[in-house]
Amino acid sequence: MPRTISVAALQTSYGEDMQTNIRKTEDLVRQAASRGAQVILPSELFQGPYFCVSQEEKWFGEAYPWREHPCVAAMSPVAAELGVAIPVSIFEREGPHYFNSLVMLDADGRPLGVYRKSHIPDGPGYQEKYYFRPGDTGFKVWDTRFGRVGVGICWDQWYPETARAMMLMGAEVLMYPTAIGSEPHDKELDTADPWRRAMQGHAVSNVVPVVGANRTGTEHATEVGQTFYGSSFIANQRGDLVESLGRDEEGVLVHEFDLDYLDRHRAAWGFFRDRRTDLYGVLTSPRP
Amino acid sequence: MPRTISVAALQTSYGEDMQTNIRKTEDLVRQAASRGAQVILPSELFQGPYFCVSQEEKWFGEAYPWREHPCVAAMSPVAAELGVAIPVSIFEREGPHYFNSLVMLDADGRPLGVYRKSHIPDGPGYQEKYYFRPGDTGFKVWDTRFGRVGVGICWDQWYPETARAMMLMGAEVLMYPTAIGSEPHDKELDTADPWRRAMQGHAVSNVVPVVGANRTGTEHATEVGQTFYGSSFIANQRGDLVESLGRDEEGVLVHEFDLDYLDRHRAAWGFFRDRRTDLYGVLTSPRP
Repeated sequence: MPRTISVAALQTSYGEDMQTNIRKTEDLVRQAASRGAQVILPSELFQGPYFCVSQEEKWFGEAYPWREHPCVAAMSPVAAELGVAIPVSIFEREGPHYFNSLVMLDADGRPLGVYRKSHIPDGPGYQEKYYFRPGDTGFKVWDTRFGRVGVGICWDQWYPETARAMMLMGAEVLMYPTAIGSEPHDKELDTADPWRRAMQGHAVSNVVPVVGANRTGTEHATEVGQTFYGSSFIANQRGDLVESLGRDEEGVLVHEFDLDYLDRHRAAWGFFRDRRTDLYGVLTSPRP
Repeated sequence: MPRTISVAALQTSYGEDMQTNIRKTEDLVRQAASRGAQVILPSELFQGPYFCVSQEEKWFGEAYPWREHPCVAAMSPVAAELGVAIPVSIFEREGPHYFNSLVMLDADGRPLGVYRKSHIPDGPGYQEKYYFRPGDTGFKVWDTRFGRVGVGICWDQWYPETARAMMLMGAEVLMYPTAIGSEPHDKELDTADPWRRAMQGHAVSNVVPVVGANRTGTEHATEVGQTFYGSSFIANQRGDLVESLGRDEEGVLVHEFDLDYLDRHRAAWGFFRDRRTDLYGVLTSPRP
């Protein structure tokens, strides 16, 4: 019997109340599980509105040590009950440090550890450098009950380095929780297509399925407001969007992949066979 | 006045006779130049049929030192006459070594140097490891009269490492001459979409235009035959296919880009600002 994995992306809107957000997420996790999903990806920072739209001190009060974070505490029994793995995106506090982090819950509900977002964006509507210290964990892959899963967080997803690093660490599926939408400073700038294309590119260049989960809806933390463009998807190893949602839809995407086939097929492509690590020095040079 | 660059991709079929192939290429270069193109990209190894479809000793007789290669000798006066830069893909011989190489001719017809394909593929229909020693030049970018251009060769184009390295070396446009088509061992395997997507991904992740030039037509070097799928394109910095050709068309694509705008816009995205070279060690590790 081939080794398969069924992955899911959740897409919904989120508001001010954390308990409501958790309940919404739990409902979608249950929907996904009922359709056979084994690793179920909610979108980024579902604990609240995307507060990074502006710089406000009050939000630091919503960060918690990762083991005690209310979203982790709430999702852990759900993971255990349903027997599914859930990568939980959180605002993490560790002493005086604050991170944009991810806790991977395995199918018994136990956390496998924490990953801290490596690449922190900054720009109008995405003031993340105010809130988050750049991650200090390095990239991580997770040996879940269903396969080895690599998870980057939002801005990480634009970096081919993140995807390649997780693949070199043995990832069999890549996942990216996201919160992205309109650009308050420029109504003409719509990044939905590029957002997908960057990740479709990772799928192709690494011969690996990629799952992107984004929030939807309009939030009014600032006067201008910010509309998140959904467009969550599951891409296969060719970059085909085998499952996808529109900008405003709420729902669940589920797709199964044959990991044994992908393993052979990745080898047959030969990308990893032919890498020239002897020529890649410029990639790691701090001053190329 | 903004600094602009007009780039072109050529798409045609090629046969056994090198002089005919050179003439065909020259005709298309002239068409592109008449439409204002400044850097004009023919497809890979236009000197002959794509001989790598099988392993045959006779083809080693078609390799030449790069300064004396008939394609370089023929294109150099064309570049000078038209005042255009031409990246010329050749089968190169240097003593006992054979390379899949590229000579960049600047707009005065003089060669700026040689790049030797870093990643060499091998698989049914693409027996390149039999012919070519993996390149020893490292990645290169070229200060042409019109801007700094990075050129990878075919298999290089699937590697995010190639694109990123050329960007870190200051490339303002990326180009990839190609010879790719049907997979003789598997009629179901059509790589045209993934081929484009990998490069659209480079465009997005590096905020840079990408030009891909592929040959078209069916060649009969082996019993099965091999059909090249064309699909040449020019992608903008969002990965939009702003110019493209079908599978069987012959012709020329031309597009102009504003390099000053792209320079600012790339900075505003912040991808290069936020790279974590401290976390990328696995990318260059020979045994990760």
